[in-house]
Amino acid sequence: MALRCDVVAVGTELLLGQITDTNSAYIGEQLALSGIDSLRQVKVGDNLARIVDELRLALSRADAVIVCGGLGPTHDDITREAIAEVMGAELVLDDEVADRIREMFASRGRRMSENNLRQAMVPVGATVIPQTRGTAPGLICPVGDKVVYATPGVPHELYEMLERAVLPDLRQRSGESAVIVSRVLRTWGESESGLNERLAPLIERLDRSGTPTLAFLASGWEGLKIRLTAKAPTAAEAGALLAGAEAEIRAELGLLVFGTDDDTMESVVLQLLRERQLSLGLAESVTGGLVAARLTAVPGASDVLRGSVVSYATEVKASVLGVPPGPVVSVDAAVAMAEGARRVLGADIGLALTGVAGPTEQEGQPVGTLHVGLALGEAVETASLRLPGQREQMRQFSVISSLDLLRRRLLAL
Amino acid sequence: MALRCDVVAVGTELLLGQITDTNSAYIGEQLALSGIDSLRQVKVGDNLARIVDELRLALSRADAVIVCGGLGPTHDDITREAIAEVMGAELVLDDEVADRIREMFASRGRRMSENNLRQAMVPVGATVIPQTRGTAPGLICPVGDKVVYATPGVPHELYEMLERAVLPDLRQRSGESAVIVSRVLRTWGESESGLNERLAPLIERLDRSGTPTLAFLASGWEGLKIRLTAKAPTAAEAGALLAGAEAEIRAELGLLVFGTDDDTMESVVLQLLRERQLSLGLAESVTGGLVAARLTAVPGASDVLRGSVVSYATEVKASVLGVPPGPVVSVDAAVAMAEGARRVLGADIGLALTGVAGPTEQEGQPVGTLHVGLALGEAVETASLRLPGQREQMRQFSVISSLDLLRRRLLAL
Repeated sequence: MALRCDVVAVGTELLLGQITDTNSAYIGEQLALSGIDSLRQVKVGDNLARIVDELRLALSRADAVIVCGGLGPTHDDITREAIAEVMGAELVLDDEVADRIREMFASRGRRMSENNLRQAMVPVGATVIPQTRGTAPGLICPVGDKVVYATPGVPHELYEMLERAVLPDLRQRSGESAVIVSRVLRTWGESESGLNERLAPLIERLDRSGTPTLAFLASGWEGLKIRLTAKAPTAAEAGALLAGAEAEIRAELGLLVFGTDDDTMESVVLQLLRERQLSLGLAESVTGGLVAARLTAVPGASDVLRGSVVSYATEVKASVLGVPPGPVVSVDAAVAMAEGARRVLGADIGLALTGVAGPTEQEGQPVGTLHVGLALGEAVETASLRLPGQREQMRQFSVISSLDLLRRRLLAL
Repeated sequence: MALRCDVVAVGTELLLGQITDTNSAYIGEQLALSGIDSLRQVKVGDNLARIVDELRLALSRADAVIVCGGLGPTHDDITREAIAEVMGAELVLDDEVADRIREMFASRGRRMSENNLRQAMVPVGATVIPQTRGTAPGLICPVGDKVVYATPGVPHELYEMLERAVLPDLRQRSGESAVIVSRVLRTWGESESGLNERLAPLIERLDRSGTPTLAFLASGWEGLKIRLTAKAPTAAEAGALLAGAEAEIRAELGLLVFGTDDDTMESVVLQLLRERQLSLGLAESVTGGLVAARLTAVPGASDVLRGSVVSYATEVKASVLGVPPGPVVSVDAAVAMAEGARRVLGADIGLALTGVAGPTEQEGQPVGTLHVGLALGEAVETASLRLPGQREQMRQFSVISSLDLLRRRLLAL
């Protein structure tokens, strides 16, 4: 039974969406890597009664609570007061902390307002976590047999204090040495429910065994991610559990899995081109440069990407790419564009996209229509798809769909 | 006394930090703009008992609760079940929703697995919010005199459903008669502190009067937004308050303001081209097609955008655009690219970008170097900039910086 540590992020600006709370996500990730569960994360405003309420709620459900934010020097930084109330303890000035704050201001030649001494107030019974980067110290506050950690809301101050003081203290309390390791398989070409069905036997078995856990992360036009998370006494054992499940998934899904963890369809395609020493030239109509833009977002794309002819106007398709007269949202146009791109850009492979992104139909073809041409060697492979979504969505689906076609072709070489 | 609506974001991946919950921050901002308080926002994992617990907690404190996520088709999407339990109602198949899902799969020529019908399960007594972008419908679920809204976790689906169905329903319940109107001025070219200084007198006066309120929203490579929010008995009065403040801001900032509300630099430039009946051709190196991709994300771009030559390889700059031998990260190359783009694409205006996105320097020039060439009429205008940030950031800054150069040139015609 793992120790449970929940998170309370304090700050009205978080609730108003003026700042996105990234701290609790970071804390959750770090806790998981330490084998500690975080089952509940809360955002609350700078209001004493509500902070106290959330701390009591969190303590009623978890063994430990990390509070971040509200440790500043101003009147609306009241996390210290809230914790003191929950502890039933008084706040007293900690001379050591006060001196450190005075020194810090002096060393920076800045005048210290009395407000700053608010940051030296410590609930009786709490242990101070010295600051190394800012002025607000952290706090370790026992509440019965449970504990509340107060940490700054400034991310880099929080990260440092979490690693230096909070996680070690939590690991020691948990006495549990389990390691949690996670791995993501990137897939394209099957719906979430389709994957769910194909992996049903594995999922059932994993549900029974409890580890590794399997979850689907829908990532829209980035495809579907399958996240495996394994918990074991050692990293090696956790890794072995992941490897076993990954092998089963790959055996079932085959080419649907295009990468792992930080791989993207773009990085995978670029790597395949590199390995085969083939250069790529693009001709884009419906995507208007998006395929090239996404490929060139990957450092080193210039090794294999020659460029792209964004032939948005019909005359440009003819004048630059040599597309013959006729409908431009067609398989024939896609073929001519692919051959034109390969010729004009001096590439080994030509990949072309033409279609209808909307908002209205074109040449009598509905929004979502995509024709792809892939010129490689003697053959020009084509694909015609109907893609979902509004303009931007359809364009993004066109990018990954056409790159996936190229990926499968390269793997077949 | 404003209506209170809290938020519950569902998903184990949010607690593990694999995805950062940006939805609740967005919801909080939208609620605030509607004069509705959001005092608590919670993240909880895919666990039925805990989701039910959080819903009951939220309902015990707020008048309404927005749940986002957990509406997918798979075994770990259990938000529907949790809400049904809180309502004390049964889940039944909604034939209309089921048909819509079947049609959607049919229209895309995709096989529908039975799992997808999980998304057509609706608690008795709940009202369906039809989906316009995905398969999972939203739900309006009365609980006593309170209400739970179920919305998808996919951001663009959530945003659309929030604006179309959830906020209107909440405003109606709140009975809040005052009208809150907001207007955003989009700016590019001045820092937040710079804007703050130039607008200081206005800001002080607004602080005293209390309305409209003025807030700066830093939007990175989209520039800085100035949001004015006015509250008044009628829309006309609120609008008048906004108009007055906007006029003052424009008088002070002049060309720094490039648009309002939903305007983007792309849409503004395209409109200026249309009004002047000028066509645009691009030559992109460092941005790799991103300028074209962003312009073509705007419906109707084809009126004025001829296309783009993404000349990523140096030989392509020479062979397609006729760039003479010499350093390619240079003002001369930018000029030759701009003239080449105009000629090859048959456009009135040629806009070209060459630079260094990193990770490493190029031709002895540091990461962040950008040279822009703008060919219009006889003259070729140039600009050389040093932009901040890593690869993607630098590329995005390059897009808006070069489009802003074009915008100012077009306004001077």
